[in-house]
Amino acid sequence: MFSALEQAKKAKIAEGFLRQASSEQKNKFLLLLADLLEENIPKILVENKKDLSDTVDFTPAIIRRLQLSEDSIKGIAEGVKSIAKAEDPVGKEAGSWVRPNGLKIIKTRVPIGVIACIFESRPNVIVDIAALCVKSGNAAILRGGKEAQHSNDFLMSIIKQTLVKTDFPEDAVQQLEDRRYEAVDDLIQLDEYLDLVIPRGRESLIKSISAKAKVPVIKHMRGLCHAYVDSEADVDKAIRIVVNAKTSNPATCNSIETTLVHQAVADQIMPRLIQELSDRNVEIRGCPRTQKYSSKVLPATEEDWSAEYLDLILAVKIVDSFEEAISHIQKYSSGLTDSIITENKTKQEKFIRAIDSATVLVNASNRFTDGGEFGLGAEIGISTSRIHMRGPMGLEDLTVCRYVVIGNGQVRE
Amino acid sequence: MFSALEQAKKAKIAEGFLRQASSEQKNKFLLLLADLLEENIPKILVENKKDLSDTVDFTPAIIRRLQLSEDSIKGIAEGVKSIAKAEDPVGKEAGSWVRPNGLKIIKTRVPIGVIACIFESRPNVIVDIAALCVKSGNAAILRGGKEAQHSNDFLMSIIKQTLVKTDFPEDAVQQLEDRRYEAVDDLIQLDEYLDLVIPRGRESLIKSISAKAKVPVIKHMRGLCHAYVDSEADVDKAIRIVVNAKTSNPATCNSIETTLVHQAVADQIMPRLIQELSDRNVEIRGCPRTQKYSSKVLPATEEDWSAEYLDLILAVKIVDSFEEAISHIQKYSSGLTDSIITENKTKQEKFIRAIDSATVLVNASNRFTDGGEFGLGAEIGISTSRIHMRGPMGLEDLTVCRYVVIGNGQVRE
Repeated sequence: MFSALEQAKKAKIAEGFLRQASSEQKNKFLLLLADLLEENIPKILVENKKDLSDTVDFTPAIIRRLQLSEDSIKGIAEGVKSIAKAEDPVGKEAGSWVRPNGLKIIKTRVPIGVIACIFESRPNVIVDIAALCVKSGNAAILRGGKEAQHSNDFLMSIIKQTLVKTDFPEDAVQQLEDRRYEAVDDLIQLDEYLDLVIPRGRESLIKSISAKAKVPVIKHMRGLCHAYVDSEADVDKAIRIVVNAKTSNPATCNSIETTLVHQAVADQIMPRLIQELSDRNVEIRGCPRTQKYSSKVLPATEEDWSAEYLDLILAVKIVDSFEEAISHIQKYSSGLTDSIITENKTKQEKFIRAIDSATVLVNASNRFTDGGEFGLGAEIGISTSRIHMRGPMGLEDLTVCRYVVIGNGQVRE
Repeated sequence: MFSALEQAKKAKIAEGFLRQASSEQKNKFLLLLADLLEENIPKILVENKKDLSDTVDFTPAIIRRLQLSEDSIKGIAEGVKSIAKAEDPVGKEAGSWVRPNGLKIIKTRVPIGVIACIFESRPNVIVDIAALCVKSGNAAILRGGKEAQHSNDFLMSIIKQTLVKTDFPEDAVQQLEDRRYEAVDDLIQLDEYLDLVIPRGRESLIKSISAKAKVPVIKHMRGLCHAYVDSEADVDKAIRIVVNAKTSNPATCNSIETTLVHQAVADQIMPRLIQELSDRNVEIRGCPRTQKYSSKVLPATEEDWSAEYLDLILAVKIVDSFEEAISHIQKYSSGLTDSIITENKTKQEKFIRAIDSATVLVNASNRFTDGGEFGLGAEIGISTSRIHMRGPMGLEDLTVCRYVVIGNGQVRE
């Protein structure tokens, strides 16, 4: 077994290769990886079942995140193929200009270097990250949650096999071999070899990594997300969006936890909304005015406005005004993704300006806040940090700009 | 006196205002600031003299960085004016596309938030940062070195005056009031209010800030920079560039510390280069082959290849090949800025790919690695970090992309 330090050193060497790999070679890796994933669906499902059989302590939310199916694996393979089709971000110009003295200044994209990703539960993550990192020229060191160990180990064996078959160094993508928790602490200290760590998972994990890391951290923090139904909302759209944003996959961070409804449309919205949510087994915790619409609505406490349920529970508040909705979201949002449902353009624009979240949606479900749904192929995470990139991070966000300057003998006065 | 926490809280409130300020208002601030700087040149010089009169322990390099002149203040004011002329990065689209389901995805720039900048010596920094932060919609908390205290205090009074006269909150730009070193440690813990810290100065300062900060850090690390004179270099250009890159302002991080000369051109280059450097009082520390060209050349030790002199000292090595030069730079460069002087296009491209520095120059002096020289108006620093941005950071680099999504009732399957 190699130590975190030995693995990081090997990753740094592999990165020197990856950084200069051609788009052709990188796409060959991705297409073969997609093929091998599809070929191995039955075997992947066997390993995934082993993980699921240890479910004694698992909540339904964890099981939903952990469980793979034939369709979900095909979806992962499709994501890999779309990364193959996507433009290579390495070497892409982000701007160039000529100075009065004739110097040509070129802002151009290079890989970040060696990236560590610490994540939990969802086994698709290991494939997404391997694909995104290889295409963007970065080496990756991955550490998945122990609850997905069987799935992750098998998926990693497919990734390794694909790397070797397409002439990449095997160390381009590694799983942290040392399973002790301390190994992660060791890894994130190695600023000589590691350039970035991306933790994805529980808030406590992310806080612990952020507190201990010596390398830059891009956080994928919790999602306390809101949908605000304005007085000028289209009622059908509003109900469809709120129900979808809560129920389509409540275990994910881009699901909403709170809905705010303008009092002017509450009579139209609330009875239907409560019915549709109840039909889908959603527990509703409402403000006193919400409770008046149904005995099914439990009372919301102050804690409910700051709770990330990640489950079939929704906090609902009826607000007196657009401004009250803005203030509530500004106060309680985790800054991941918030939405407004309104037909009024002025309020749409005001909402976009006032709500400083990484993704702001107008008349669409918060659940679209996702690299795949944005057309990025896949995402390495949804950044809640305030530098480098906010929101879903795809291929281009795994590179960074630097400068190349072309002169003809110029010197500075 | 306010504590770091109180100042950070006030900055966060000011940021909510700055984030939504119009380009017109921001430019009004900048143009007035430039005017007031020019009007106050005599007074600024009086304060700067006070700083310089405490020079007992100062090295010539520190004095060069600290000293202002009528011309340098005019230069600072010009920089501020060029920031006024520059495009407002806030709200700028970095890309937009429509998904098959009709969703419009817009990647758009927003300010980072509250930025702390810890810097040393150079009094122009306080003005550059205030101007860049206001234009990019960020609040700033600044802490300059005590050696420039008189200059910084007076310049800050001009900045405050300008903020008030142009209807900005006075707290938009603040100097850390608590002069104790511990106040900086307090400040960089405040991740609830502070979004980024940019330390500029001694390596020890930057390492200390990086180790202690709870907020993201963009480092402006030391510059151990190289100029490589290739076998196919134009001799006149090579000598001009090396002399300029060493002597035009040796106290700055983008000055070179080492020159590598290909053995094939050493006979042509070395006698003239040694003469020109000696004429400018540069101490040369050379490899044994370099020493053969002049008794003025002192012997270089292993330490010289990793030394950042920031003074009129240059390490010189004659190399056998292009590859040896690449290896030397890969081993010793701090990654700030390295240059090649060659007329051979293939070697230019190979050098650009192989040298993973934040700025790579071809046939131009390393001294151009500077936000002003790149046409960015001014720079908040030269990033040696590997995320967000590498190299000189200007206006646009003080913003970050987020997503706005416009739909028409779409929900996710």
